[in-house]
Amino acid sequence: MQRTDLVVQADDPVLKSEIVAELVKQLRALDTYDTQKDWSNLQVIDPLVLTKERKQAIPIIGDPDEITLARVKAYYNALATLIEKKSGLMAVPVINLTHEGFGRAFVIVGKLLVVDKTLRDVHRFGFASLAKLDEEVTKLLDKALGLIGQYSEVANA
Amino acid sequence: MQRTDLVVQADDPVLKSEIVAELVKQLRALDTYDTQKDWSNLQVIDPLVLTKERKQAIPIIGDPDEITLARVKAYYNALATLIEKKSGLMAVPVINLTHEGFGRAFVIVGKLLVVDKTLRDVHRFGFASLAKLDEEVTKLLDKALGLIGQYSEVANA
Repeated sequence: MQRTDLVVQADDPVLKSEIVAELVKQLRALDTYDTQKDWSNLQVIDPLVLTKERKQAIPIIGDPDEITLARVKAYYNALATLIEKKSGLMAVPVINLTHEGFGRAFVIVGKLLVVDKTLRDVHRFGFASLAKLDEEVTKLLDKALGLIGQYSEVANA
Repeated sequence: MQRTDLVVQADDPVLKSEIVAELVKQLRALDTYDTQKDWSNLQVIDPLVLTKERKQAIPIIGDPDEITLARVKAYYNALATLIEKKSGLMAVPVINLTHEGFGRAFVIVGKLLVVDKTLRDVHRFGFASLAKLDEEVTKLLDKALGLIGQYSEVANA
């Protein structure tokens, strides 16, 4: 299944960012049935961009499907991998969701919670643009690395 | 459904412990369909005791059923409640399990992981005796409260 309704532009500078690269890797890793084997990186990352139009096309209430859940997992896996790369410490992503798509996501380093997000409406998971995705991940990374620096004994426990 | 094959003795001193009291409360709270409404505390706690004979009756490999999962949840809810009571800080239990019964259980206080257990073979969840249950919970509580004391800034974060 090739996507024909792409919203990400081929010249989007964020496409070449470390964050998108890691996220594409994680999305491909979770594509168990190789349905995205022939997709470009742009095609793989594109569904994470939820423009206003795309968002309006999704019902407000709904259960997340397997593909959406895989995207949420890929996102927190990528975040944990980036934290691990930058801190040199093992980072473990934990996602706790009800089947209605409510719950929490954590990233744990040692005994320290470095990411703690409440999840809701996971069936509408996505970002307004790649720039917004990059901004959000950068914010979470900065916060996580700040906590690791501040409480390094706990992060190393 | 009344249990007739009880292994806990009515005069077991641990029956009156704070731990068993909390666990019974949690088990009753998760008994959505009131199937245990007329059970005594002894009857409610009894299934958590997995004697050698009971353990042998359970297949080595198996998926945990809803009732067993409710017991695991009750156990970590009780543990979190006791940590909360003793520390005065909010403690959040998090259980992450595959449907095969493998995963991890955490209790989080602030940004501090105070309990971190690997779960396996959850379909055989239980303790050799009430004394063993009490011993295990006491050990986890001591460790959690020790961590909270040591890293109080993180626990209060």
